[in-house]
Amino acid sequence: MTATLPSPGPGALSLSGSSAAVVREVGLRDGLQSIATVVSTTHKIEWINAAYAAGLREMEVGSFVPARLLPQLADTADVLAHAKTLAGLFASVLVPNYKGAELALDRGADLMVVPLSASHAHSLTNLRKTPDEVVAEVARIRALRDAGGNHTLIEGGVGTAFGCTLQGEVAESEVLRLMQALLDAGADRVSLADTVGYADPASVYRLFDKARALVGERLWCAHFHDTRGMGLANAYAAWQVGIARFDACLAGIGGCPHAPGASGNVTTEDLVFMLERMGVSTGIDVSAVLALRQRAAGWLSGETLHGTLWRSGLPRAFAPIGPVTAEGAV
Amino acid sequence: MTATLPSPGPGALSLSGSSAAVVREVGLRDGLQSIATVVSTTHKIEWINAAYAAGLREMEVGSFVPARLLPQLADTADVLAHAKTLAGLFASVLVPNYKGAELALDRGADLMVVPLSASHAHSLTNLRKTPDEVVAEVARIRALRDAGGNHTLIEGGVGTAFGCTLQGEVAESEVLRLMQALLDAGADRVSLADTVGYADPASVYRLFDKARALVGERLWCAHFHDTRGMGLANAYAAWQVGIARFDACLAGIGGCPHAPGASGNVTTEDLVFMLERMGVSTGIDVSAVLALRQRAAGWLSGETLHGTLWRSGLPRAFAPIGPVTAEGAV
Repeated sequence: MTATLPSPGPGALSLSGSSAAVVREVGLRDGLQSIATVVSTTHKIEWINAAYAAGLREMEVGSFVPARLLPQLADTADVLAHAKTLAGLFASVLVPNYKGAELALDRGADLMVVPLSASHAHSLTNLRKTPDEVVAEVARIRALRDAGGNHTLIEGGVGTAFGCTLQGEVAESEVLRLMQALLDAGADRVSLADTVGYADPASVYRLFDKARALVGERLWCAHFHDTRGMGLANAYAAWQVGIARFDACLAGIGGCPHAPGASGNVTTEDLVFMLERMGVSTGIDVSAVLALRQRAAGWLSGETLHGTLWRSGLPRAFAPIGPVTAEGAV
Repeated sequence: MTATLPSPGPGALSLSGSSAAVVREVGLRDGLQSIATVVSTTHKIEWINAAYAAGLREMEVGSFVPARLLPQLADTADVLAHAKTLAGLFASVLVPNYKGAELALDRGADLMVVPLSASHAHSLTNLRKTPDEVVAEVARIRALRDAGGNHTLIEGGVGTAFGCTLQGEVAESEVLRLMQALLDAGADRVSLADTVGYADPASVYRLFDKARALVGERLWCAHFHDTRGMGLANAYAAWQVGIARFDACLAGIGGCPHAPGASGNVTTEDLVFMLERMGVSTGIDVSAVLALRQRAAGWLSGETLHGTLWRSGLPRAFAPIGPVTAEGAV
């Protein structure tokens, strides 16, 4: 009656995930890029300040793409400049190419995420490059970074890692090959993303376990969408194999313009609550995030918001873990 | 950096859940009991027929409670009579007391679920008995069943197993004590329910693992609500420790009248999809369940429905596992 799924890998004998985890707010980038509303720079700064006050210490604040493509993110340089004024806030941006990387380096982002799509079909549609051309671009970006003596870290974000709306299946071996290739090309870190909401907890467990075995701590983030309701289940599965950093969007906004029907990212407030409820310290005050959601709902009037905690509220006798200790900070 | 959560128990070294699972449709009972709409007997029969055609083989079709308390379920005897005409359909009913059990036995239900609330406060409010008084009632029900030579199985359903809106925390030790007491009193099987949506996957993993270690296969079902978005994550965690039967409601309807803000049960179509996507055979055609949801939406006009799959649709290249084999039927 018992099957071999998820097949036990090197980390399978431990179910003890990290006792602390980082939730990286990506609503200002992945969330806003796929909705019609253009949130003003003023409101973005309010968002960042409130998220920071709630305890969030990593945020993806925008994307260095041409403003004609994503007018929602045209003010990324200004938003990043503000983020850099907040002590201890680790501010990342997305850069689709070398040109974007030049801007990220010039503006001193703490980290730039270079997206790669493991699905060739998705890669050609979304990035107009093959995955291996993206790997080559990362090598050029790394050379540029090193030549300038800049400290901006490079994260290779492997998207459509669990399948693709255009291509269907994406082979695990190809995901792992590209992840390794990104590191070989000079990326400091890699992440795996279920861009279109195709993952399930068993596939997450399997792929993240293999990926951890291959590259260890350099696999540092998991990015899930809640398209088919499995966002939290997938985060739990990744946590089980040692992942301690998760992307999430306030109010679950976002998605992928090339993924029809894809609803938003994992909801920040729901994910923080799940982790804290599990006894995993995030350093984040979930009540403060819920209050921020309420404010953001005003800025996002007319947009579909997601998540459940805002409706049900916190349970009786819920005690958050409290601030992250120096030891616990991941 | 690693904590001891969820603490490894006897089953913790295996992550291989069952390769087949049963999804028990409880929408006709737990779903309908907490919404205002009274669905007609005709529509309930259509529901059962369509669910049966979709491959569902276990359904909780009603509750033997006074019609003045739950007019939505007043036709339980008729609905059960119809369910019994479908070959291989295992039809259960909820019975809150001895009187209800008499009716269930008289009408030949395959199984009767006797709810017990591990929270004393919730038990007194919801059932007007202490948990131990419910245990005593189960002993009387068992004696009645045996005296009549009837084959109706008795399931003791331990509710508020992960906390309670009235009382707050519910001790694991008390849940386990009551579960064992139900079996000692003559229940054939027990289940654990997160009645008010307080569970998280780590607590599910911990408690179900302990419960399995204590009573083995006699713990045969998990009942989750999706109140805070963790329904599927919790089902995954329970699956990991060997649970192969899950309650779910079509369109995620339901909740608990005494749990303010509690949204519905885990959604049948989303749960079936997750399991099949994980490679766990359910014998259920998820597309047919989605079609049934569409019909049910008409019968439930004005009610809040839940779930995600109906909106996003099935992913490209999704292949269901296919029918349950004789060997795989749980």
